[in-house]
Amino acid sequence: MGRSKAQISVSLDGYMAGPNQGEDNPLGEGGMGLHEWAVKLSSWRGEHHQEGGEGDENPSNAVIDAAQENVGAVVMGRNMFGPIRGEWGGEDWRGWWGEDPPFHTPVFVLTHHPRESFEMEGGTTFHFVTDGIESAMAQAREAAGDADVSIGGGASALQQAIAAGELDQILVNQVPILLGAGERLFDGLPPGDGFELLEVVRGPEALHLTYAIAR
Amino acid sequence: MGRSKAQISVSLDGYMAGPNQGEDNPLGEGGMGLHEWAVKLSSWRGEHHQEGGEGDENPSNAVIDAAQENVGAVVMGRNMFGPIRGEWGGEDWRGWWGEDPPFHTPVFVLTHHPRESFEMEGGTTFHFVTDGIESAMAQAREAAGDADVSIGGGASALQQAIAAGELDQILVNQVPILLGAGERLFDGLPPGDGFELLEVVRGPEALHLTYAIAR
Repeated sequence: MGRSKAQISVSLDGYMAGPNQGEDNPLGEGGMGLHEWAVKLSSWRGEHHQEGGEGDENPSNAVIDAAQENVGAVVMGRNMFGPIRGEWGGEDWRGWWGEDPPFHTPVFVLTHHPRESFEMEGGTTFHFVTDGIESAMAQAREAAGDADVSIGGGASALQQAIAAGELDQILVNQVPILLGAGERLFDGLPPGDGFELLEVVRGPEALHLTYAIAR
Repeated sequence: MGRSKAQISVSLDGYMAGPNQGEDNPLGEGGMGLHEWAVKLSSWRGEHHQEGGEGDENPSNAVIDAAQENVGAVVMGRNMFGPIRGEWGGEDWRGWWGEDPPFHTPVFVLTHHPRESFEMEGGTTFHFVTDGIESAMAQAREAAGDADVSIGGGASALQQAIAAGELDQILVNQVPILLGAGERLFDGLPPGDGFELLEVVRGPEALHLTYAIAR
């Protein structure tokens, strides 16, 4: 069986998104600053159908390549899939990523609003799970088989997964900026240990910390 | 002129003290877990008049030795000096550290309550500064001469120093535990950059990240 894993970029003050997130600004104010190091990389650009970018002369590239390897299914929160809080904006919204999303696997979206599954180009199928993180993870594990399940975010989905003991490994890409407000990754979690630092890689603009989680 | 510097241990969720801090529990619930790696070190034990401990076979030891070097004055917040919130508990309180505190330099305590300076054994003199962080830092720099000024904490004193552009360098000792609540180091600070990761040292129980700050 594969592992469940996540990777996330956070500011020095622990935010994975800035304040005032919205349809026009899904990362919140200043949030793009968390991702500038990534969008330069050939690993990220390839995943998003763009050519070029920095290769393995930048140590961050191999870290991102490895994180993207062997993913057989994705779980994500409702606000990562779409911008509309509360109710769905009809059945038209098909995600942020265009007709060929960068997942190429089944994607299980946590939501309170039932919706039929639908398939996109390139092997991505969106499924909608209304009965919680454990159910979404079970369905994703089944779909992934021997491959890994990636939890894509946002903060709430990751916190639910950590609190439920459903996340085996997390890659934290720490960016030395302050966002001052927004959504924190490690927030509202029960105290305790169970995190083991497996690997430290220093990229030019981000520090990559991989933790195993046993909770 | 020396630098201003600080070192602080934080949890994975960013707390430098746990919840429900008080006279009997100055580090808050779970807060001692942030310091267990340190109290084993010969560098820490020597500073606190204790023998033995782990030497340079533990990479954390050299980091702490270096952080403690060349300190000519200390600035600290009122709650780091004493447990009583609001008013002074009379003139009897002489700090947490006994008659020979581990500073051996002038110490400038930020407070709203004026009090006469007094001298302890071993070269520590406590001064009380009622007109803010810039004033405390100016007095500390004057006292330190060519040596460094160390800002001892707590969270509020460090945040005031960072916001005022008064902190040149910070060593963050990141411990892979969750405290869940308490006092965060990087909290309520204005957004922006200006942090540069200078050094990464991986100890067996803490990850040591040194940042230069230019704000």
